[in-house]
Amino acid sequence: MIELLKKARQLKQKKYRQQTQCFVVEGKKNVCELIESDWEIKYLICGERSQLFFKNLDVPFPIFFVKNVQLQAASSLHTNEDVIAVVQKPTGNFSFDYKNSLVVALDDVRNPSNLGAILRILDWYGFRQVICSKSTAEVFNPKCISASMGSFLRVRVHYVDLAHELSKLKKQIPIIAASILGKSIHTVEKPASGIFVFGNESHGVSSEVMQYANECWKIPKRGKAESLNIAVSVGIFLDRLLHK
Amino acid sequence: MIELLKKARQLKQKKYRQQTQCFVVEGKKNVCELIESDWEIKYLICGERSQLFFKNLDVPFPIFFVKNVQLQAASSLHTNEDVIAVVQKPTGNFSFDYKNSLVVALDDVRNPSNLGAILRILDWYGFRQVICSKSTAEVFNPKCISASMGSFLRVRVHYVDLAHELSKLKKQIPIIAASILGKSIHTVEKPASGIFVFGNESHGVSSEVMQYANECWKIPKRGKAESLNIAVSVGIFLDRLLHK
Repeated sequence: MIELLKKARQLKQKKYRQQTQCFVVEGKKNVCELIESDWEIKYLICGERSQLFFKNLDVPFPIFFVKNVQLQAASSLHTNEDVIAVVQKPTGNFSFDYKNSLVVALDDVRNPSNLGAILRILDWYGFRQVICSKSTAEVFNPKCISASMGSFLRVRVHYVDLAHELSKLKKQIPIIAASILGKSIHTVEKPASGIFVFGNESHGVSSEVMQYANECWKIPKRGKAESLNIAVSVGIFLDRLLHK
Repeated sequence: MIELLKKARQLKQKKYRQQTQCFVVEGKKNVCELIESDWEIKYLICGERSQLFFKNLDVPFPIFFVKNVQLQAASSLHTNEDVIAVVQKPTGNFSFDYKNSLVVALDDVRNPSNLGAILRILDWYGFRQVICSKSTAEVFNPKCISASMGSFLRVRVHYVDLAHELSKLKKQIPIIAASILGKSIHTVEKPASGIFVFGNESHGVSSEVMQYANECWKIPKRGKAESLNIAVSVGIFLDRLLHK
């Protein structure tokens, strides 16, 4: 048991997630959604409060019951989550029909909570995939999993060499970058398909990626804040794109 | 010095913020904006990395220089912030012309980071005030201050008995609540003035407040996420309200 708790705790670190190809999902709501999905759960570790709920589940993986203090030591979140699942990362290749879809691309979004919040928005608007530069936060980071509120199960994240990928697509499909220097999203003509690139929290879209953008769009501001949170920007963009 | 660090650390807790009427602002960007404002800074505590920057400032308050480890112990954020300001809470009464404005009201928004993110959005769209139920997170919570990215300096937060306030205004001005059961924000007629109420992260607008709403509006979803983050919702609503 101590061994299993130790393993779950180690999975807070990217190094161990890479070694084992496993990651952790915390909290009852997230874990319940996970159980209903087809992702492979290795085992659950369950604290005292949720014992009654999980004890009678008919599931094909082991559930271990521990004291709350033991569970807290293994949890990466600063909340009172009462259950942790250790889960196998999914496999599968990247294939994507860029031509007939709206695609979101993230260039160097570093904060895992922001990535999770963006997955939740993409899920809300019915997107099933997102492409990310290799420097973007890791989807299996516990903060991302938590912020996604279960949406990591429905929106697949593909890490690619983003500049290289866009260089191949530039002539086939509009590539639009979010930038404070762009045209107003309220007045531009919205295409039916295209790749919409959002950049780093502090520096925006990198020049390496920006060179492949056909256009830049912005959310006009009226007040004094320097910027909007990246997830808020993605939400406003997608709502404008999908509902003209 | 140890005494000052201890005081700064205590200000993580609401109890001490109430006792002293002071709060802390962390991080160079926030502190620089603060210095340019007319808020009353009691003193700065500055770590090694920012020493050069702050040493030559001509300011009317003391700056104390400490070792990074000492500063980290006093910091409430899990980042490498290198400077902390201890600041006097502003005073001033609440007066508001509801009739000719768009007003945002928050009903029981509990997460201080969400409140901070909302202040940042309000600032982006040029709002100068927001009204909050008394159960809404405290604006001087360090997580709220940090998430607001300096916008707490420009958007004043007024805590009121929200149901009582709305009961007085119901016949004078449209009151619109964000609710998953409402009309689509894409098709409704947008009024030039009104109060827009956003509710708790899990439970939405309370029934006590909801009884005074003339209408409910929603952001239509296309996918499977159960909800949007409250700050993302506020962003999408305001962008739709201000740009038809």
